[in-house]
Amino acid sequence: MSSIRIAMAQVNPTVGDLTGNALLVTEYYKRARERCAELLVFPELVITGYPPEDLLLKPAFIEDNLQILRELAGKLIGLTTVIGFIDKDERGIYNAAALIHDGSVVGVYHKMFLPNYGVFDEKRYFKAGTSPLNFILKGFTMGLGVCEDIWTPEGPAHLQAECGASVIININASPYHMKKAAMREEMLIERAAANDVTIVYNNMVGGQDELVFDGHGLIIDSDGAVLGRAPAFEEALLVHDLRVREKKRDQDKDGGCNTVRTIKLSPLKQERSEVSPCPVPAASIAALPGPCEEVYRALVLGTRDYGHKNRFSHAVIALSGGIDSAIVAVVAVEALGSENVTCVFLPSKYTSAESREDAVELANNLGVELLSLPIDDILGLYLKGLAPFFKGRGTDVTEENLQARIRGDIVMALSNKFGWLVLTTGNKSELSVGYATLYGDMAGGFSVIKDVPKTLVYEISEWINKSGGSAVIPRRIITKAPSAELKEDQRDDDTLPPYEELDAILRAYVEEDRDIREIQAMGYSEDLVKEVMAMVDKSEYKRRQAAPGIKITPRAFGRDRRMPITNRYKGWH
Amino acid sequence: MSSIRIAMAQVNPTVGDLTGNALLVTEYYKRARERCAELLVFPELVITGYPPEDLLLKPAFIEDNLQILRELAGKLIGLTTVIGFIDKDERGIYNAAALIHDGSVVGVYHKMFLPNYGVFDEKRYFKAGTSPLNFILKGFTMGLGVCEDIWTPEGPAHLQAECGASVIININASPYHMKKAAMREEMLIERAAANDVTIVYNNMVGGQDELVFDGHGLIIDSDGAVLGRAPAFEEALLVHDLRVREKKRDQDKDGGCNTVRTIKLSPLKQERSEVSPCPVPAASIAALPGPCEEVYRALVLGTRDYGHKNRFSHAVIALSGGIDSAIVAVVAVEALGSENVTCVFLPSKYTSAESREDAVELANNLGVELLSLPIDDILGLYLKGLAPFFKGRGTDVTEENLQARIRGDIVMALSNKFGWLVLTTGNKSELSVGYATLYGDMAGGFSVIKDVPKTLVYEISEWINKSGGSAVIPRRIITKAPSAELKEDQRDDDTLPPYEELDAILRAYVEEDRDIREIQAMGYSEDLVKEVMAMVDKSEYKRRQAAPGIKITPRAFGRDRRMPITNRYKGWH
Repeated sequence: MSSIRIAMAQVNPTVGDLTGNALLVTEYYKRARERCAELLVFPELVITGYPPEDLLLKPAFIEDNLQILRELAGKLIGLTTVIGFIDKDERGIYNAAALIHDGSVVGVYHKMFLPNYGVFDEKRYFKAGTSPLNFILKGFTMGLGVCEDIWTPEGPAHLQAECGASVIININASPYHMKKAAMREEMLIERAAANDVTIVYNNMVGGQDELVFDGHGLIIDSDGAVLGRAPAFEEALLVHDLRVREKKRDQDKDGGCNTVRTIKLSPLKQERSEVSPCPVPAASIAALPGPCEEVYRALVLGTRDYGHKNRFSHAVIALSGGIDSAIVAVVAVEALGSENVTCVFLPSKYTSAESREDAVELANNLGVELLSLPIDDILGLYLKGLAPFFKGRGTDVTEENLQARIRGDIVMALSNKFGWLVLTTGNKSELSVGYATLYGDMAGGFSVIKDVPKTLVYEISEWINKSGGSAVIPRRIITKAPSAELKEDQRDDDTLPPYEELDAILRAYVEEDRDIREIQAMGYSEDLVKEVMAMVDKSEYKRRQAAPGIKITPRAFGRDRRMPITNRYKGWH
Repeated sequence: MSSIRIAMAQVNPTVGDLTGNALLVTEYYKRARERCAELLVFPELVITGYPPEDLLLKPAFIEDNLQILRELAGKLIGLTTVIGFIDKDERGIYNAAALIHDGSVVGVYHKMFLPNYGVFDEKRYFKAGTSPLNFILKGFTMGLGVCEDIWTPEGPAHLQAECGASVIININASPYHMKKAAMREEMLIERAAANDVTIVYNNMVGGQDELVFDGHGLIIDSDGAVLGRAPAFEEALLVHDLRVREKKRDQDKDGGCNTVRTIKLSPLKQERSEVSPCPVPAASIAALPGPCEEVYRALVLGTRDYGHKNRFSHAVIALSGGIDSAIVAVVAVEALGSENVTCVFLPSKYTSAESREDAVELANNLGVELLSLPIDDILGLYLKGLAPFFKGRGTDVTEENLQARIRGDIVMALSNKFGWLVLTTGNKSELSVGYATLYGDMAGGFSVIKDVPKTLVYEISEWINKSGGSAVIPRRIITKAPSAELKEDQRDDDTLPPYEELDAILRAYVEEDRDIREIQAMGYSEDLVKEVMAMVDKSEYKRRQAAPGIKITPRAFGRDRRMPITNRYKGWH
């Protein structure tokens, strides 16, 4: 058995930053050369970042990406490189992988299976490729694929394997959700066994608006053994000496395989041994993080990248003394550094002494600045001005929303004055049922825990305290009953069912499209299920104006769930 | 030549209101029967409304729609009906047309061409049909099609015509944009000639979130003559006695045509003449509205339907004394009635006496209530509270935004207290370049002129005054220089290029994906073009949190233009 040294560059490109992404490629190229790699693999669409969305409709953007690829190719000498880019022909554009050998593009593969579900809109932009591609390097026959090509059992891998591929190189921009890494590993083990191939699966890493790419690149052999696993949520260069028994190509038997193009790469002029003595790479198999750590690190990476890629160095968060703003502050400090986070405490007469103490303690624990500004006087002046219009009407949710909006105004004023990114603190449970104020607590640039259900907020908070070795988040923040503190003695459970029940119903309804009978069968009363379904449906208008936030569940709000606002479907008769 | 009486029901269904939409079908069925129609045609997806978006992922929704179709079919006796619904088989779901003959579903056609561009996501949901369908009624051979099937020259119409169809029945949910009616007519004339058929093109009417369906149904013969044209922006039943020379089916010659299913319908038991004596329908050819009227009526219908379909009877608008809020108020009054519109005037020390006079005059002209509440005291209190944080910093856009946000808070408080729909007043030019305050003037439920460029706002305002026969919109509102009045002597053109230039550049950049060189070639300096492009790109985050509003251009913001927020592509080197 011969061997080939493969380097997977798990990198973090930025959408639209063609020049910056090209620099990233050359940086990892240099690192791969230092490690004597023979085959270097970059993620899907690494030149443009993923997803470029409607930038893909701009002809100049496509041309610029082609120009960058041409410029890069000439620099990638001395090894073979696989690199994601956008190709173009008279039929349209393609999500493509270039095969660059010693400074020249020697082949291009067009993604054949285009995802057009969930957050994906690839059929909006791309034509589907029709021609699988193998290449032969140092005697290894390898098939090239892009993302969905390997997710689909009907993908090109079986044709590629039939035509002699013993290795499938699959490049990805596969976004994170909880447990996705384990799902992916299972899927790849299945696919590797079914096609009797080793799969080299390289994923992008980094945050892009609502998506986080978790990296987690994998090399898996046909027996299901994990030969390499890149770390989660960080850039990495995974170097691995691959040893594979070459298969006989079926075409040797029957002359077939004309459905797969095969490119035979010439040996490199400069052999590995001539460059420099490189040690044999040690096995590189990163551990999988646990469930809470996984989500936490996704939130940190998503927040850091949203901030930095949009050129915000500093964030501001309104601390209420409650658990949602606490976890957001912890994430922000880890993402941006404590010196780059400012917290504000905006109490009203309904704010408890405990909330103030807890906010102060949290800010101290995190080492962040805490500004304070009571809102009662401003509220009073609004209510005085509105009194003539409100005559004869009782107090209702109007006065509560006004408090939230005053806080929103103050936080936005700080943002405007200092160029700070406002991180909003609402969780998925609240946003699902509309227990949030538009332009109030929903005001801000990025919504860190937008897709984290309240019950998971608690679990992660416990994990944060445990993993840190001390209660960064003051104990009482976790144990006290949650309250919006917008009127006297208010508690969330005055208005909402207990979060354990609410979150279970929401998962079934929002993420799994269960109908009313199925949800009742989980053990909930018809009235409760109807109430929750109706709350979700009628607050769609709020979600449409919500800040973007990090997807961590199989179905997030935003591009992932496209519901009409005008919608009279109730789901029962 | 024999004749057949066709009735096109141009109806306004509501997304998700399966029962209500079924009632609409039976109501138009009764009207068609009274007119002795033999063939009754409803729009695409009339059972569910269009677009149902992710409701389509709910299995219960699909089942409920099938149940409604079954119940309806039995009631539609004594004639033949074509009706849009969602079909289902083991492969998935289909955008479908049912052929119902005298109370039974006798055939189902699956849309073959699925639009997946612009506002359309049909490949997210539907499988494409593979089998064209003809039916023979009273000796006429007619082909069935759904929307995109006729927009594409490669659509099934040519196969249907080859197999003897002399008429193509095409059902639509074709959304409005400027000049679309004329485009559609041109396209249909081309298609009718190319296939030597008469086309019966029935479109939906009504507003659904950001879309307005304009109706404008057409009957066009193979010579391009318009035999019937339904009115724009309103429900209608267009009845027409169609006379067509039957063609010989090609299969009579060569036995072909097995690519097209053909259903031969039996004669009805009850003949037309037995029902009641019906007069022969007069030619019904509605005039096409002019360019300003067209947009105005789209805005009125879109606003009325967003309000009513979401069960708002009353709207509130902040009048500034400027032209944007003026036109929104005029539209709102036409859409909802003057008794259902409340205006508020929220002056600051920067508000001119002219603005006050103009706002009052406009409200008087429209006969709407005008509330007034100065915001200076509230602003003063915010600034006092923020002063310790802002120490050493000069005045900037922060103080301007705060004024806009105080106004937003007040308008939202009125909305919360009285259940009023807040109509926001920003135009497309402002929203394009970010000349608007998030949570301030952008706060509200529906953004009436969101897709109307400022220059068109002026044109429509002139048209409103002319068509009404008097200056509903006070003359000075149209003639004075536009200003946000957020600081001393402010004018829009302190910050923005003149609107004539800005709008031309915006159209090229936002709607047509022109690159910098192409836009410069239109006669603008490189600096100006770069400045506008950069303003557009960097305000994507604001648009993501904007209220929905009515699409009237070929490319609106919202679902129609999906740009990343995190995006470093500049479009120049």
